[in-house]
Amino acid sequence: MIKHRILKALPIALLLTLVTASIAFAQDEITADTVAYAVDNITLMIAAVLVLFMQAGFAMVEVGFNASKNSVNILFKNLMDMAVGALLYFLIGYGLMYGSDITGGAGFLAWGGFGIGGVTADPVAGSLNPQVDWLFQVAFAATAATIVSGAVAGRMQFRAYIIYSIVISALIYPISGFWQWGGGWLNALGFHDFAGSLVVHSVGGFAGLAGAIILGPRIGRFNKDGTANPMPGHNLTFATLGVFILLIGWFGFNPGSQLAFAGAVNTDVVMLIATNTMLAACAGCCFALISGYFTLGKPDLGMALNGMLAGLVGITANCDTVSNVSAIIIGLVAGILVVVGIMILEKVRIDDPVGAWPVHGLCGIWGGLATGIFGTGQSLGAQIIGSIAIPVWAFVTCYILFMALKAAGILRVSEEEELEGLDITEHGTINYPEFTGSLGSAAAK
Amino acid sequence: MIKHRILKALPIALLLTLVTASIAFAQDEITADTVAYAVDNITLMIAAVLVLFMQAGFAMVEVGFNASKNSVNILFKNLMDMAVGALLYFLIGYGLMYGSDITGGAGFLAWGGFGIGGVTADPVAGSLNPQVDWLFQVAFAATAATIVSGAVAGRMQFRAYIIYSIVISALIYPISGFWQWGGGWLNALGFHDFAGSLVVHSVGGFAGLAGAIILGPRIGRFNKDGTANPMPGHNLTFATLGVFILLIGWFGFNPGSQLAFAGAVNTDVVMLIATNTMLAACAGCCFALISGYFTLGKPDLGMALNGMLAGLVGITANCDTVSNVSAIIIGLVAGILVVVGIMILEKVRIDDPVGAWPVHGLCGIWGGLATGIFGTGQSLGAQIIGSIAIPVWAFVTCYILFMALKAAGILRVSEEEELEGLDITEHGTINYPEFTGSLGSAAAK
Amino acid sequence: MIKHRILKALPIALLLTLVTASIAFAQDEITADTVAYAVDNITLMIAAVLVLFMQAGFAMVEVGFNASKNSVNILFKNLMDMAVGALLYFLIGYGLMYGSDITGGAGFLAWGGFGIGGVTADPVAGSLNPQVDWLFQVAFAATAATIVSGAVAGRMQFRAYIIYSIVISALIYPISGFWQWGGGWLNALGFHDFAGSLVVHSVGGFAGLAGAIILGPRIGRFNKDGTANPMPGHNLTFATLGVFILLIGWFGFNPGSQLAFAGAVNTDVVMLIATNTMLAACAGCCFALISGYFTLGKPDLGMALNGMLAGLVGITANCDTVSNVSAIIIGLVAGILVVVGIMILEKVRIDDPVGAWPVHGLCGIWGGLATGIFGTGQSLGAQIIGSIAIPVWAFVTCYILFMALKAAGILRVSEEEELEGLDITEHGTINYPEFTGSLGSAAAK
Repeated sequence: MIKHRILKALPIALLLTLVTASIAFAQDEITADTVAYAVDNITLMIAAVLVLFMQAGFAMVEVGFNASKNSVNILFKNLMDMAVGALLYFLIGYGLMYGSDITGGAGFLAWGGFGIGGVTADPVAGSLNPQVDWLFQVAFAATAATIVSGAVAGRMQFRAYIIYSIVISALIYPISGFWQWGGGWLNALGFHDFAGSLVVHSVGGFAGLAGAIILGPRIGRFNKDGTANPMPGHNLTFATLGVFILLIGWFGFNPGSQLAFAGAVNTDVVMLIATNTMLAACAGCCFALISGYFTLGKPDLGMALNGMLAGLVGITANCDTVSNVSAIIIGLVAGILVVVGIMILEKVRIDDPVGAWPVHGLCGIWGGLATGIFGTGQSLGAQIIGSIAIPVWAFVTCYILFMALKAAGILRVSEEEELEGLDITEHGTINYPEFTGSLGSAAAK
Repeated sequence: MIKHRILKALPIALLLTLVTASIAFAQDEITADTVAYAVDNITLMIAAVLVLFMQAGFAMVEVGFNASKNSVNILFKNLMDMAVGALLYFLIGYGLMYGSDITGGAGFLAWGGFGIGGVTADPVAGSLNPQVDWLFQVAFAATAATIVSGAVAGRMQFRAYIIYSIVISALIYPISGFWQWGGGWLNALGFHDFAGSLVVHSVGGFAGLAGAIILGPRIGRFNKDGTANPMPGHNLTFATLGVFILLIGWFGFNPGSQLAFAGAVNTDVVMLIATNTMLAACAGCCFALISGYFTLGKPDLGMALNGMLAGLVGITANCDTVSNVSAIIIGLVAGILVVVGIMILEKVRIDDPVGAWPVHGLCGIWGGLATGIFGTGQSLGAQIIGSIAIPVWAFVTCYILFMALKAAGILRVSEEEELEGLDITEHGTINYPEFTGSLGSAAAK
Repeated sequence: MIKHRILKALPIALLLTLVTASIAFAQDEITADTVAYAVDNITLMIAAVLVLFMQAGFAMVEVGFNASKNSVNILFKNLMDMAVGALLYFLIGYGLMYGSDITGGAGFLAWGGFGIGGVTADPVAGSLNPQVDWLFQVAFAATAATIVSGAVAGRMQFRAYIIYSIVISALIYPISGFWQWGGGWLNALGFHDFAGSLVVHSVGGFAGLAGAIILGPRIGRFNKDGTANPMPGHNLTFATLGVFILLIGWFGFNPGSQLAFAGAVNTDVVMLIATNTMLAACAGCCFALISGYFTLGKPDLGMALNGMLAGLVGITANCDTVSNVSAIIIGLVAGILVVVGIMILEKVRIDDPVGAWPVHGLCGIWGGLATGIFGTGQSLGAQIIGSIAIPVWAFVTCYILFMALKAAGILRVSEEEELEGLDITEHGTINYPEFTGSLGSAAAK
């Protein structure tokens, strides 16, 4: 009898369920799935905006840590990184990073065509509209590019920087990005770099290192006896503001990288990511302060600021897969590492005016390794390979690029120009004419 | 038999569906529709916050592009624009802009009563709580008002500016706003100004132009032989920070203007809007740099910054209806236009210290026209009419207002006051007493 | 017959309803409830980010309102407030504030264990993932802590400040926080402090007052005849930027404090909160300008900025329970009160360099009382008790703490150090070496 009744009522109830569903669909398609689609895409858009805000953070950090005579030049480079980079990433970078493999599967190179490709997606949870996917990705590309501007501050020609900016946004960053996030060989190997300790930060950090080496130090940075002269920045308020902005932006960078937010599993992971990000940042700050105190004999604001960034870079690869306590340890180690890195660079006489390599390069690698050490279910072997491969790729390609620019005679400004400052010689202006001399007289030199 | 079985089971299944729905409703009313309502309203609130952040962006841009002796005055004007404007827009502006037509339908004037009117809405997708609707709208009103402060910097009395600020927030902006967004005659005509290239930016730009004309140039801006003297700002770092903040804020301005976010169609449009906004901004920046290079013979940061803003203003009217490639072209043209606009003003000896008219006025009109050229299903004729009507309205009403203030003798400060700087003469203070002279001695003059 | 048919079809329809529901649950669990869970948690995460951004706002306000010679020290204190505070709040503060009562229910002290405790929650509306709950709460703790740094600027030893920062984040703030938000005695009494006019702001304001009293005024602040010397800040642009950032951050602080956003009732309350926040801020700004004008005879930017903050502090306790017009009145009164508070401090010769007590202490109390006066269904008696109890707790405990630090001889810097500036003496650096003297010569002193 039961069976009989089920058979009788089944078609009707099924029909009614379908009718109910299709009514919901017709009423502007408001179902749990379409709302989840809205949540996923809108959250990613907000995350992209936070990551774009990091451009302002980098600009403030780098300008604050450098001399005022080069400050317009630095701001300009940060601005053009994003503007030039976005157009190039639209044109070819995105296609190289998220296209289909053209080397036979899980390989080294992909191509997905010019531009973005579509403006709609299936309106279900976890599905991303291609437009917002591009927006989030372009913000990451701009981050990788702009890290370099600090390392090469005060001595590179503006046109050389624009060329570099085009090449990294269009080629270098997207290609290694494909290896991990586009489905390439590192992804196939099991390498895990959640939000880009390697893919983004180590690329910027090692590109900057290549630039700093080939350019050589700023005039007066090192003495003949091997000792270094501090070349203090002109405004630590801007630098501090910049670090606060970067911290804020990182809450787009890391949580946003989950790419899907609705569905309880995604939501829970995103919240873990956010808290781990905060804990690592704060641990990095505190332990760079302490390390700096033992090294310099005073609480140094610059060290604490770089320590916060170091903690953030260190947690970026693994924020989704480690515990809160591990996040603190990862940040703590990063805070110590950044101080060590700054001392190493000084020892080997490489002039990186803002500490781009210690923060993004060294702690980027640390982030990759820490994923293998503290992460759940990650392979340390794969982490070691990825944490070597990506920095090597960025360093070698940028080394060749900067060598080519040097050979072409357009890499470094002249000694006179460097001493006068790039703002006047490259841009014919002064940032603070009322405070550092009149524009008229300076320009007349 | 089928028919019979359907008739039998129908009432029961229907009842169960209703019961299920009403249980869901009773459990704190969590249905797809109420969640969509939350998504729509919360997203609009976040968008409003981003637009309010633009006040900080405008303040930084305008203060950076002007002399330090007037910087407190500029900051103060930006702050009061928002504070005074919000109270007036609460009192009558909102009612004038979104009330019901009192001129017979699709006309020129509306009234909806004082204040906001309600604190709840039907909890369904696409429905906006009146409170957040007001918050989003007031942020737009504040934007229109604050654009002017840059154009009239350095020579207007503070009390005259407060009066202007009241009039534009309470009357001028809401009335033309009604024409388009409140259901007035421009809307009926088919004019499309999605997020306000005209309604917001051209109103500010042309109000500023009227102010700049009636005030006349700052002392020393133009020579008797017709040539112009550059009057550089005092801090390009603030100006650059301001542009980055404005870029960020524009992701509230444009995507937020969709007003509904849940439902796949809305979500997809919002993502297109966000990406188009980014592409136009970057194209504007790059092509203003290039145009500036051909004009000035150097890469000029100020031009690139204004170019980014020009691209943003240009895409504002049409970001929902053009392709990515069109967005780049619209930004590109805006980037060129802003350089041309700056040269035109210099030629005709109008002193607009921050380029408010080239950016917001000229490129606002370009945004309206570009909607007709590149948009899907827009009428070029309607676009031309709207792109003339709104600027004319703003220019004429503000021209009359500023003339009245001039006739009353309260528009411009005296020559001595202007030379000394408005910070001391209007506010009895100095922004940077440690850097530009002591407060005591300056105040004692 | 009807009854018979119902009995027949009931099991089948019920089964189908359950099957439909369980299918939805299995498909990555996308139901209205899981999406609501995503909305609630993601919105709270965004709110937390906005509140964390307030750290930048406080840093800019406090640095701008103080002399450049102490500016690195101020920035450093703001940074460490957050970094040290977050680690301590993770370790024990959170457990003290949101643990279970250990004094027998609705009492004075709680404990919930070290750390956060979990990384998942039931995926239903109104349920918060513990990770994001902590993130939101830690941002509040950092706010309470950092308010003090402005009040004690220019004369406190850095190590004393770090000790204070540890104690307030780990003990003082969490304990009184438990009384109200953790389910303690004030909550049981019916006291309503929605987002923390008392719990956060008055704690910071009265802790700062205790510090300012025990430290005594900066050298040169008051004359022997009882008159006061203005000690102007070094950069009102930073201060203004800071207030704009704080305004923006407050839209995380107040709306976020609803803690649940999906469900029509929650959504509607959140929108009311946001608009009330804006209206009170703007009213506070306008009426502090007016009050300042009558007091000082000029429109004073510092007064208007503090007025905006005063309005924000005043509305914080009651933004969820008052009308728009009441919000304007609350802001208006706060704007007047802050000017009165500044005059009172000057009269009694307490040196609070940024007005931390007038803004956060006095207007915090006003916020608590205003809740009883203007709120719907609040008890004025309970409001009076809470508005006394929390400030007294913060003042007394901090008074004891600062007295102990004074007795230990590590509270105030020496007279020579104070005159030279804390940046050099405490941190061996200068914020603006190109503008205020060379680092080398200054450090060599």
